[in-house]
Amino acid sequence: MEPQDWLQKFGAALERGDIQAASSMFVPEGFWRDLVAFTWNIRTSEGRAEISAMLAATLAGIRPCNFRMKSGEWFTFETGAGRGIGHLRLRDGQAWTLLTTLQELKGFEETRESGKPESPPAQPFVLIVGGGQGGIGLAARLKRLGVPAVVIEKNERAGDSWRKRYKSLCLHDPVWYDHLPYLPFPDHWPVFSPKDRIADWLEMYVKVMGIEYWTSTVCNKATFEEAKNEWTVQVTRNGEPQTLRAAHLVLATGMSGFPNVPSIEGSFAGTAVHSSKFGDPAAWKGKRCVVVGSGTSAHDICAALVEQGAAEVTMVQRAPTIVARSETLMDLAWGPLYSEQAVARGITTQLADLTVASVPFKVLPEMQRPIYSEMRKRDADLYAGLEKAGFLYTFGEDGSGIHSLYLRRGAGYYIEVGASKMIIEGRIKLKAGVSVAAFNPQSVRLSDGSELPADLVVFATGYGSMNQWARELISQEVADKVGKVWGLGSDTKADPGPWVGELRNMWKPTQQPNLWFHGGNLMQSRHYSLYLALQLKARMEGIPTPVYSLDPAHHKE
Amino acid sequence: MEPQDWLQKFGAALERGDIQAASSMFVPEGFWRDLVAFTWNIRTSEGRAEISAMLAATLAGIRPCNFRMKSGEWFTFETGAGRGIGHLRLRDGQAWTLLTTLQELKGFEETRESGKPESPPAQPFVLIVGGGQGGIGLAARLKRLGVPAVVIEKNERAGDSWRKRYKSLCLHDPVWYDHLPYLPFPDHWPVFSPKDRIADWLEMYVKVMGIEYWTSTVCNKATFEEAKNEWTVQVTRNGEPQTLRAAHLVLATGMSGFPNVPSIEGSFAGTAVHSSKFGDPAAWKGKRCVVVGSGTSAHDICAALVEQGAAEVTMVQRAPTIVARSETLMDLAWGPLYSEQAVARGITTQLADLTVASVPFKVLPEMQRPIYSEMRKRDADLYAGLEKAGFLYTFGEDGSGIHSLYLRRGAGYYIEVGASKMIIEGRIKLKAGVSVAAFNPQSVRLSDGSELPADLVVFATGYGSMNQWARELISQEVADKVGKVWGLGSDTKADPGPWVGELRNMWKPTQQPNLWFHGGNLMQSRHYSLYLALQLKARMEGIPTPVYSLDPAHHKE
Repeated sequence: MEPQDWLQKFGAALERGDIQAASSMFVPEGFWRDLVAFTWNIRTSEGRAEISAMLAATLAGIRPCNFRMKSGEWFTFETGAGRGIGHLRLRDGQAWTLLTTLQELKGFEETRESGKPESPPAQPFVLIVGGGQGGIGLAARLKRLGVPAVVIEKNERAGDSWRKRYKSLCLHDPVWYDHLPYLPFPDHWPVFSPKDRIADWLEMYVKVMGIEYWTSTVCNKATFEEAKNEWTVQVTRNGEPQTLRAAHLVLATGMSGFPNVPSIEGSFAGTAVHSSKFGDPAAWKGKRCVVVGSGTSAHDICAALVEQGAAEVTMVQRAPTIVARSETLMDLAWGPLYSEQAVARGITTQLADLTVASVPFKVLPEMQRPIYSEMRKRDADLYAGLEKAGFLYTFGEDGSGIHSLYLRRGAGYYIEVGASKMIIEGRIKLKAGVSVAAFNPQSVRLSDGSELPADLVVFATGYGSMNQWARELISQEVADKVGKVWGLGSDTKADPGPWVGELRNMWKPTQQPNLWFHGGNLMQSRHYSLYLALQLKARMEGIPTPVYSLDPAHHKE
Repeated sequence: MEPQDWLQKFGAALERGDIQAASSMFVPEGFWRDLVAFTWNIRTSEGRAEISAMLAATLAGIRPCNFRMKSGEWFTFETGAGRGIGHLRLRDGQAWTLLTTLQELKGFEETRESGKPESPPAQPFVLIVGGGQGGIGLAARLKRLGVPAVVIEKNERAGDSWRKRYKSLCLHDPVWYDHLPYLPFPDHWPVFSPKDRIADWLEMYVKVMGIEYWTSTVCNKATFEEAKNEWTVQVTRNGEPQTLRAAHLVLATGMSGFPNVPSIEGSFAGTAVHSSKFGDPAAWKGKRCVVVGSGTSAHDICAALVEQGAAEVTMVQRAPTIVARSETLMDLAWGPLYSEQAVARGITTQLADLTVASVPFKVLPEMQRPIYSEMRKRDADLYAGLEKAGFLYTFGEDGSGIHSLYLRRGAGYYIEVGASKMIIEGRIKLKAGVSVAAFNPQSVRLSDGSELPADLVVFATGYGSMNQWARELISQEVADKVGKVWGLGSDTKADPGPWVGELRNMWKPTQQPNLWFHGGNLMQSRHYSLYLALQLKARMEGIPTPVYSLDPAHHKE
């Protein structure tokens, strides 16, 4: 069966409410991923039984119609409330994967600015805590949709969350992956943006997009008043306490919010600092430096210290780490969708994002594994070198690499842009399979009993869960009710089951009414901010938004 | 003959140096407009004799080749030094109009930013005086081409030349006409930008494009030292005197630099101010206001005063003014190239700009006249109303409207967005065919002997020539040597002959070595900044740039 025919038949089945017919058009183990169009949730139904159950709960209210094939595997459709884009992969005439996404709400489409002066909203409908790329991009979408929103940011300037990081920080994703909504980087932008360029871009973006953005504003406490169905939020703005009210609260506080610093016995006479507070590497010229951790920050900081003339730089690696060469990732992983070549082939950012979204998380690992098999061959020299240097590398528990790992736990990898070479060459020394056991005044003692003389110890040991923000800003009770944020339930390290098939609590309703989590990398923030913005707009306009299958909290953090 | 065949034959004639054959491929009165590709000048050769003469002087050195038809009337070609785009209109198998434009220099193509930190240039190759949209856009191009440039701007912030204008100022060109190079406005930008949006955009642009931009810096004096082939420029930066040296000096000081204020006898007890210094219209609530002039500023200021509740607003119109309704201009004039519909038809900004450039100035009036014939019919109500109100309107001496008039004298028109309606309704009063003869303490006396009581008199009487900047910043001698800046030599009012067929001294070599003028509206600044940047880059790299047919100075101002 051709996609065109399948879609026509499928649309007809949905229009006449024939759930049995519609779900039997999938292969038995088929997937239907829905972004807010049918479920008012972000939800993958796996197999015919789940698909039937989803349709039984949603079809009558959603009233889908006008399914029309566009080009290739893409189609458009409508629901009672809005217009959507979908994607279809057939296997032997039946649907293997189906994606449905809501793109706009009827009667509430984005409009061009009038140019007339505007006054700031008397009361925001949405309060966004955190003014990094996530909060900013979401605020831009809400602005275009006419949803009054305020972003509060603890720093003095938009972009400071980038500006204040270590000097050598660069994006390791290519520029085509990193655009913000509405305003893409210009064509000559560096492929891998230095942090200060991103910082300045964000600052500019806030201004150009007309975002209501409060700098030097700290969120102290947020309380949901059920009777009023709104949040009361205590903030300190420029040192002055202030109370805000908003119907919805979005925590866009980022995945890099709560530093993980291991508690180490003993006392250290040198400087010990978490990577998030590590400043100018040039300050450590001629000094002995120990960097604990083996993820991106650890690698970047080691390389910067070497480049700036530190006397000795040692990485302390506890567990295996995925390493992938940037050029190879560009070629094998990003290139088909996010590259100069992709743009030349007519793959817009929207098309690339929707293509990524069209792959159910369940089948992602099997799609990613071939990339890493090829990489292992192509970069055999790199892996041989790392092995010889004693570095513990992996391609993930199931060989599915960085993208899977990122979705499961958000960390544990390095995209090689130079530090691995330094490890191989011995310019960055390595202690692998060990952890820090204790401090001495002039050194650290490792778990294998060896000792490393040190003037500086950097803990590049990552960050705690986003759930901690709910505990910190709202309450332990709400944090527990909402449960773990991020992760798919893959039952791999740091991503305990059960399988949920979507990122937990991200961009969708949570167990706490009117509380939302927003974030992720630049691509995710860009793409999913659309669905979060539409969910908020629908609620503001009083459009019914019955949420299908709200996930329970399986884990507390 | 098909364009394809014509081009092949023409290219072959050029490649074998057969000037006679090449020029005979034009209709006898045919045009060849060249932007820097053949002439290292901006030059239209009119008729076979001029075309032959141009080729005789340039062909051997330019070495054109590889003419290839692209789509429709567009083609690409190469020269020894660069690559170009061209456009061809045939009449009976012969060329009626030919456009050749240089787009990049071989070996010096624009490259993507590396992301590595940069230090500001020790000495600029180009000093740009004036940091409005013109200077900024040119600086961005030079930056992408690796030409060290500094922009000096007298205001405290980029964008202030817009920010400080009267509150109600909006662009009367639509957004598609107004993009800066490299970084287009986002899709939701207002069609007609309010001045503060433009100001903020320019400020952001300077930062994002990495332009070396000195604010609060005044140019006091520039002297060309022939022996060194460079300019010595005395500036005051943040109150401190400083001397700069640069090989090239670009005056991007704008067409709105020297206010024309008529000298009026008598003494006035109220406020008399030039439109460039007119601030908040709300300050004149309940007051009697006289606005002298009938161009864009006069109309805008009258409308703003009425809206803000001035007791009486009178426009004093001396001479006929072109008035065209904005919607009608959008539909008939801009729409085909600069509109949402044009974008949907695949007409990029570059394509639109080159299409405009492809029309020789000699034939522009005949192409424009039908627009105004149609407008006269379509907006008969407007013109009838204006006539009834006594307003003196025109469509230009030859009926060719606003675009022609702008090229001839840069002023004398109004794009109706509301003020004409107010004139028709009598909310703006009118005294037409008169000028201000004298001041009395509480009134102005007009040339017909009548008197207008006044608390405020605004002189919306325009600006002097850009040539005055050369006199002011360099010397009378250089100003006279360079002669009049702007105008085509159409022998209409304020554009004395002889016919030169291009805008005098704009974006091309002048009689003063290493002195350039840059400016115009946003579209012209965007498009012609490319050719000026390429001319400067070629000189920096030592590429031979023999200038064909440098215009003499026909007029002093």
